[in-house]
Amino acid sequence: MIIVADNLRITQSRIARAAEARDPVPIRHMALACRDAGAHAIDINSGPLTRDPAKKMSFLVETVQDAVDLPLVLDTTNPDAMAAGLAACRRPAIINGVSLEADKLARILPLAQASDADLICYLLRPDGHVPPDAAGRMEAAVALFSRCQAAGIEAARLIIDPIVAPLVWQDGNRQNMALLEVVRTLPDLLGEPVRTIAGLSNLTSGAPDAAIRRRYQGVFLPMLAAAGVSMILMNGLDEKLMAVALASRKITTDSIFSWS
Amino acid sequence: MIIVADNLRITQSRIARAAEARDPVPIRHMALACRDAGAHAIDINSGPLTRDPAKKMSFLVETVQDAVDLPLVLDTTNPDAMAAGLAACRRPAIINGVSLEADKLARILPLAQASDADLICYLLRPDGHVPPDAAGRMEAAVALFSRCQAAGIEAARLIIDPIVAPLVWQDGNRQNMALLEVVRTLPDLLGEPVRTIAGLSNLTSGAPDAAIRRRYQGVFLPMLAAAGVSMILMNGLDEKLMAVALASRKITTDSIFSWS
Repeated sequence: MIIVADNLRITQSRIARAAEARDPVPIRHMALACRDAGAHAIDINSGPLTRDPAKKMSFLVETVQDAVDLPLVLDTTNPDAMAAGLAACRRPAIINGVSLEADKLARILPLAQASDADLICYLLRPDGHVPPDAAGRMEAAVALFSRCQAAGIEAARLIIDPIVAPLVWQDGNRQNMALLEVVRTLPDLLGEPVRTIAGLSNLTSGAPDAAIRRRYQGVFLPMLAAAGVSMILMNGLDEKLMAVALASRKITTDSIFSWS
Repeated sequence: MIIVADNLRITQSRIARAAEARDPVPIRHMALACRDAGAHAIDINSGPLTRDPAKKMSFLVETVQDAVDLPLVLDTTNPDAMAAGLAACRRPAIINGVSLEADKLARILPLAQASDADLICYLLRPDGHVPPDAAGRMEAAVALFSRCQAAGIEAARLIIDPIVAPLVWQDGNRQNMALLEVVRTLPDLLGEPVRTIAGLSNLTSGAPDAAIRRRYQGVFLPMLAAAGVSMILMNGLDEKLMAVALASRKITTDSIFSWS
């Protein structure tokens, strides 16, 4: 299980100001902190980037890869920013991401086609809604998988995101248990070595405080790990949650265990 | 998922002294603390009880059920103690437990037969060893299930314990991942509504300290919960671990979630 830190987000005002001013210091600091905490990859969430999308994403990518030697996940809905980010990456990147929504297919799929980047595929319906159950997620997976195959993007480059449901949704519990089943069975269903990813923070949307967020993310994370999720997108700077991630990772591998 | 506190153990000197002196106070105190922490049942682990087994077990059962109105799990290898404990229980008890070992079958199975108690079945080989993989555990489950059926103990009374492996075993990780599979698939395999139980403390046998025990138990517990384990035998007085158990329980149910 690969831990992807989700901390480098343009929605954080410190990061937004740094991106605007092309100030590398806060960005480098954040990237180093995530690496030191144990993250294996960094998600660069630049948002839609209405102004200077290409220049800002290039700046973010350059700054992060100057600081840490980790794979980068490029997280933007702006195709110009995505193209610039891909061009700036010195090692294969991960595109985050595509779904069955028509505009995503039209804008993001060609970028994946033209590069050697891995591609995160969201199991959303064409209308952008989250499917209500495992069957709906499987259906989206099969449809998206076909689109990618047709575009010449091989299965080994795909990373399926079955979309963690917020617990506060009326059927949040049920959806998330179904999601574990999807993670467990998807590679078998597709008959191909696709990987999976889950974004943990979605689980606790609307939670009243950090302790409660940590408590529920901290129990769902091991469940995802045991289901065999390949990557987890999470807060890399929450020490307690990172300890849970690292311990989950350690006991779900085949290797011989040691306490240290 | 039912949380069974494993704290009332004769190996604790305070409990041993109280049992010896027939002093109800420390026992009552322990039972109340476990209930207040959120435990749904109490395991009374009296050990082999070489002296006065029947009297001591009766005393323990009486004392605990005078203090708390919770189901009791009678945890002894001594058949006289087990018989006395069953006789003293005012509500259906749980016998802990039987396995394919010849002496256990000979001594414990008749007590289950003669009572309406539920029965914990350890997935051990007839020689008392832990099977090395899921197939071995399934084989033990089928054999033990047949013995119980033949003895007239119906499936709904059985609680299968697939035996958590210590992480420090050479293949501990692999065994415990296989165990999750056993928990998940056992009722389907047997085609009967058997329940399952897992003893969490075994996982961290030999761990250097409490923080490490809590860390690994705290990630394996949600994995067991997601696999659908019916009961978890654990330290009911570790506040952090109990928070993990209660949160795991909460998000694995079908009910509508609320933060409070």
